[in-house]
Amino acid sequence: MAVRAAVAGASGYAGGEVLRLLLAHPEVEIGALTGNSNAGQRLDALQPHLLPLAGRVLTETTPEALDGHDVVFLALPHGQSAAVAERLGPDVLVVDMGADFRLKDPADWERFYGSPHAGTWPYGLPELPGARSALEGSKRIAVPGCYPTAVSLALFPAYAAHLAEPEAVVVAASGTSGAGKAPKPHLLGSEVMGSMSPYGVGGGHRHTPEMIQNLSAAAGERISVSFTPTLAPMPRGILATCSAKARPGVTGEAVRAAYAKAFADEPFVHLLPEGQWPATASVHGSNAVQVQVALDESAGRVIAISAIDNLTKGTAGGAVQSMNLALGLDETTGLSTIGVAP
Amino acid sequence: MAVRAAVAGASGYAGGEVLRLLLAHPEVEIGALTGNSNAGQRLDALQPHLLPLAGRVLTETTPEALDGHDVVFLALPHGQSAAVAERLGPDVLVVDMGADFRLKDPADWERFYGSPHAGTWPYGLPELPGARSALEGSKRIAVPGCYPTAVSLALFPAYAAHLAEPEAVVVAASGTSGAGKAPKPHLLGSEVMGSMSPYGVGGGHRHTPEMIQNLSAAAGERISVSFTPTLAPMPRGILATCSAKARPGVTGEAVRAAYAKAFADEPFVHLLPEGQWPATASVHGSNAVQVQVALDESAGRVIAISAIDNLTKGTAGGAVQSMNLALGLDETTGLSTIGVAP
Amino acid sequence: MAVRAAVAGASGYAGGEVLRLLLAHPEVEIGALTGNSNAGQRLDALQPHLLPLAGRVLTETTPEALDGHDVVFLALPHGQSAAVAERLGPDVLVVDMGADFRLKDPADWERFYGSPHAGTWPYGLPELPGARSALEGSKRIAVPGCYPTAVSLALFPAYAAHLAEPEAVVVAASGTSGAGKAPKPHLLGSEVMGSMSPYGVGGGHRHTPEMIQNLSAAAGERISVSFTPTLAPMPRGILATCSAKARPGVTGEAVRAAYAKAFADEPFVHLLPEGQWPATASVHGSNAVQVQVALDESAGRVIAISAIDNLTKGTAGGAVQSMNLALGLDETTGLSTIGVAP
Amino acid sequence: MAVRAAVAGASGYAGGEVLRLLLAHPEVEIGALTGNSNAGQRLDALQPHLLPLAGRVLTETTPEALDGHDVVFLALPHGQSAAVAERLGPDVLVVDMGADFRLKDPADWERFYGSPHAGTWPYGLPELPGARSALEGSKRIAVPGCYPTAVSLALFPAYAAHLAEPEAVVVAASGTSGAGKAPKPHLLGSEVMGSMSPYGVGGGHRHTPEMIQNLSAAAGERISVSFTPTLAPMPRGILATCSAKARPGVTGEAVRAAYAKAFADEPFVHLLPEGQWPATASVHGSNAVQVQVALDESAGRVIAISAIDNLTKGTAGGAVQSMNLALGLDETTGLSTIGVAP
Repeated sequence: MAVRAAVAGASGYAGGEVLRLLLAHPEVEIGALTGNSNAGQRLDALQPHLLPLAGRVLTETTPEALDGHDVVFLALPHGQSAAVAERLGPDVLVVDMGADFRLKDPADWERFYGSPHAGTWPYGLPELPGARSALEGSKRIAVPGCYPTAVSLALFPAYAAHLAEPEAVVVAASGTSGAGKAPKPHLLGSEVMGSMSPYGVGGGHRHTPEMIQNLSAAAGERISVSFTPTLAPMPRGILATCSAKARPGVTGEAVRAAYAKAFADEPFVHLLPEGQWPATASVHGSNAVQVQVALDESAGRVIAISAIDNLTKGTAGGAVQSMNLALGLDETTGLSTIGVAP
Repeated sequence: MAVRAAVAGASGYAGGEVLRLLLAHPEVEIGALTGNSNAGQRLDALQPHLLPLAGRVLTETTPEALDGHDVVFLALPHGQSAAVAERLGPDVLVVDMGADFRLKDPADWERFYGSPHAGTWPYGLPELPGARSALEGSKRIAVPGCYPTAVSLALFPAYAAHLAEPEAVVVAASGTSGAGKAPKPHLLGSEVMGSMSPYGVGGGHRHTPEMIQNLSAAAGERISVSFTPTLAPMPRGILATCSAKARPGVTGEAVRAAYAKAFADEPFVHLLPEGQWPATASVHGSNAVQVQVALDESAGRVIAISAIDNLTKGTAGGAVQSMNLALGLDETTGLSTIGVAP
Repeated sequence: MAVRAAVAGASGYAGGEVLRLLLAHPEVEIGALTGNSNAGQRLDALQPHLLPLAGRVLTETTPEALDGHDVVFLALPHGQSAAVAERLGPDVLVVDMGADFRLKDPADWERFYGSPHAGTWPYGLPELPGARSALEGSKRIAVPGCYPTAVSLALFPAYAAHLAEPEAVVVAASGTSGAGKAPKPHLLGSEVMGSMSPYGVGGGHRHTPEMIQNLSAAAGERISVSFTPTLAPMPRGILATCSAKARPGVTGEAVRAAYAKAFADEPFVHLLPEGQWPATASVHGSNAVQVQVALDESAGRVIAISAIDNLTKGTAGGAVQSMNLALGLDETTGLSTIGVAP
Repeated sequence: MAVRAAVAGASGYAGGEVLRLLLAHPEVEIGALTGNSNAGQRLDALQPHLLPLAGRVLTETTPEALDGHDVVFLALPHGQSAAVAERLGPDVLVVDMGADFRLKDPADWERFYGSPHAGTWPYGLPELPGARSALEGSKRIAVPGCYPTAVSLALFPAYAAHLAEPEAVVVAASGTSGAGKAPKPHLLGSEVMGSMSPYGVGGGHRHTPEMIQNLSAAAGERISVSFTPTLAPMPRGILATCSAKARPGVTGEAVRAAYAKAFADEPFVHLLPEGQWPATASVHGSNAVQVQVALDESAGRVIAISAIDNLTKGTAGGAVQSMNLALGLDETTGLSTIGVAP
């Protein structure tokens, strides 16, 4: 089997990361690479770390360019995926790394993204209850946002096991690659090095409804999420510190048991030994998720913390993992659980 | 007036920072510099950024060395200040930058520090209700911890104005200098660059009882604090993201008004214009505190975020500010509100 | 005396740094702040670290706005200073932090900057032989480039004392603020963190002729400079590693003696004790220069290394130092030799 | 075929990196993991990024522990390899990642390492003239130092083609992992972030004789090297900026042609397109080497710059590449030329 894959939006960070992973994937052959504003440029000027693709040139994102592939990865700005996807045939596996098909509630989409809702595709976070079977054999995949990946994996076991009250508080730190490659003053190295800063405070971040959707589904009731993202002085990684009030009578043992059970068979989620806490460096470039959980008895809260690489498990690794499921491959094919550290 | 100041523990980060500030203080003359394990070494090998002190040599921390000064700053490991302080006369102003005299409850001290409680001194956070007057003319000052400084300033106005429920959730990111200069593997540059990691999770951090003490005093009732500190890849700075459930009927306007009133006359605390959020880079090397607050209506929480320099306002700047009050000087003497950015 | 100073280009890094220093200058009162593309914006949105100027608003760079000041600092893109300067009266002290008036040879200017040469002003590096007297009382000052400041101070004593052959090799690492605040993809935090990269290799950097000009003047003969700048993952600082073949018979003692003599009376240049080498962190935010020199006997080369803060001594601090000389103030007024470290 | 490999010194950075690579190597099975001071500890506490080895425990470095393996990697402090190696049989492939067997001249060894010379093994830099054939089938391999790898690859083509004068000047920046995992104050994150600093200046670095050995062999004459290493604020990567005076009549075309020829068939060395320069981020975690070269006509120098990952191609990747040759495997087995960027 040789799966032929195209990447639309190959010049950005998500596009570069999916190419990095596909180059190491034993079943995939890389086809068209497209990128509108960079069409005509050599990939090695834009992604100099992808040495095996050094000679390749970007073309425009047209139906013709994307035609003839088994899989098309869309790494496009929010709102642009639907128009490209509808020109691709129903037999092509389309993996959208943008936000367009993640949300189920059209009102949520319109409030946070300001354009008509395009629809909802199977959600590419196989570790969530019920998600894996929806991905198997699917021809359309909505890759989760990076923050929702980290937060949902940290908290869903507590909610699925009814251990926590329905009001979650999340503070997450993200590396700067999560903000993309379009140059903006606040993303300059001079600004971000040596600085921590919040943004989208007070419920304004677009990833909030996605977290609420995931956690509410796991809980069987509406979960509210107070989400504060912060920009950290590192290129990659998300550390999500999540907590919720423990339900009456919940013990530390019960919490730990719920997490151990939730992740027992998961190839990518690693519940750390007691007393050890996640670090983003440990999952740098890896599809692994480090999770730890504890009951703060004094404050009466379940505290769950996860670390992921926002570009790998948080975007392109999650996309390839879901692609594997959709194609009937072993879910771990081509994906590593080994971080590049230190 | 020429205030003669000694620094015990001049080779560490807190000691170096207080020297940096005292060198710029118009009323202070720097006297003895002591440091036990480094006694006999030149200061410029240990603190090469303090050029005006390049020729000075550290001596041992003895009563004789510290004798004859108007002010003695103690930058010693926790538990060592009491023994030094009791050998200093009652007319000497002793400013303890360690934890020894911060906590009022001996049981809290013993639980978190594991040794007998030495006592409680006036608390060097003048912005807290009632704190300033206790510092004026005092001969003993307990400088707050860096995290409690950031967290107490972010949250006390909400509690003093009875706007929030008594359960606070705090996630704070700190630069590595907060962990001190003693070399440990997890503090190596190779480990911290590119990584965010939590520690002391679940109520275990020694600064938690200090936050509870401050916020409970402001609220007039017991406030619980769920505190998660994280280590960030930067040398300096604390970003404290704090929240608590809003009391019924509380509006965004009421929240903002309470903060505006709390900080109206404070020379070092700056409530940012609406929509602008703190960044640690903005207060790098400065005694200023950036604060912003908002009501997350969807999650029903008051979210208050502060940024400080952990070594300046969080340690040595707070110490000098309190020294100024104790000596009857203008509180801002020798202290800057200008950050070194970018 | 109250010197009234305007800053044209107050929104960029050089403009922000000169404001940071002028705020601490006891003889200066800050007047107009201008910035064309940002005219009308609040300064605190652009320079949030300059708390004392939080309420100020930028105006357009017009003759009227700059009128009525004793000193005008120009922090403008290269090639724009001449047009502004000629509208300012001959009694106004004009300090150009751009490149326009640095080079003596019009051909050098035209080759590297591609526009007509505007002229040559007294050169604001007082430590160079003869430079100080030309600045005293001057009404026009050309502030040196950041790299030429670091390299000229590292090498001129060797050339002035005829200790080295006339072919210098320089490799310098600069923090990203040297590249300015205009957002470009290669300056994104995601790109620069964790990466070292050269640019302008092979004689192409605009600062090369300025180094040659300075070193040739000190040597009394033409010095060639092979200059390779590299971008380092830090916001501030230049480390310049410079070397040249030692002339026959030159000893390590002679080299050290020449440097000790050259900097004996310099308030800002610190020749480190033998065996200690410069670090950019030690001069962070300071106007100090750390220099060390050694004779590599095996390779037969004089190796001189300097560390400066590119924005302070390398730009705005050097500008204020020269302003002090031009105004007849003590050269060190308002300038610190203390770094903000760690 | 299943090659059974042991790693002595598995808790350090070189040991961790060779394990990271061996885990991805299709022909290798990981056997004993030893580490004296950490014997008895779980690997996941020491190397939390190596998830597939999470349950493994370190044993002591004894002959018994290392017995029964096809390959033994030694990641030990300098001077300790010989004692371990002599207890391993002649049929075992021993790959020494320390310095013990790199230098040919016993006097060089003794001068720089201060102990008796243990001998010289085939040198694991296959790209050097003649090196590859010496490695094929060998049972002993001396892995080069990280700086010599970067510098030798950048300069040997110029010397092999007699394009440059025999006096090379090298300034290299290294990430902090090159200094190892033993905690020392100057390697703390607080010290290295935001700072560039040189060390071992003036010929004192132990890697200098190794560079001289390699370049002299390529040139057929004695090459002197003035080498200045600098510590850069990043965990990984070496950028080596190397230059030498061009021989009379040498053209830019001749220089480029020599490099193109030298690397034409090399799987890991990539001569960049003209005008593009290396960046360490592009080879992060990869075994690739980026090289660029230019003739600075104004200064008359050949300037060659290389970027490597000091832990991968500079240590453990080079070790695995040489192991492949020694075992008769394809040289590139298990090694990637794709960097983890941004």
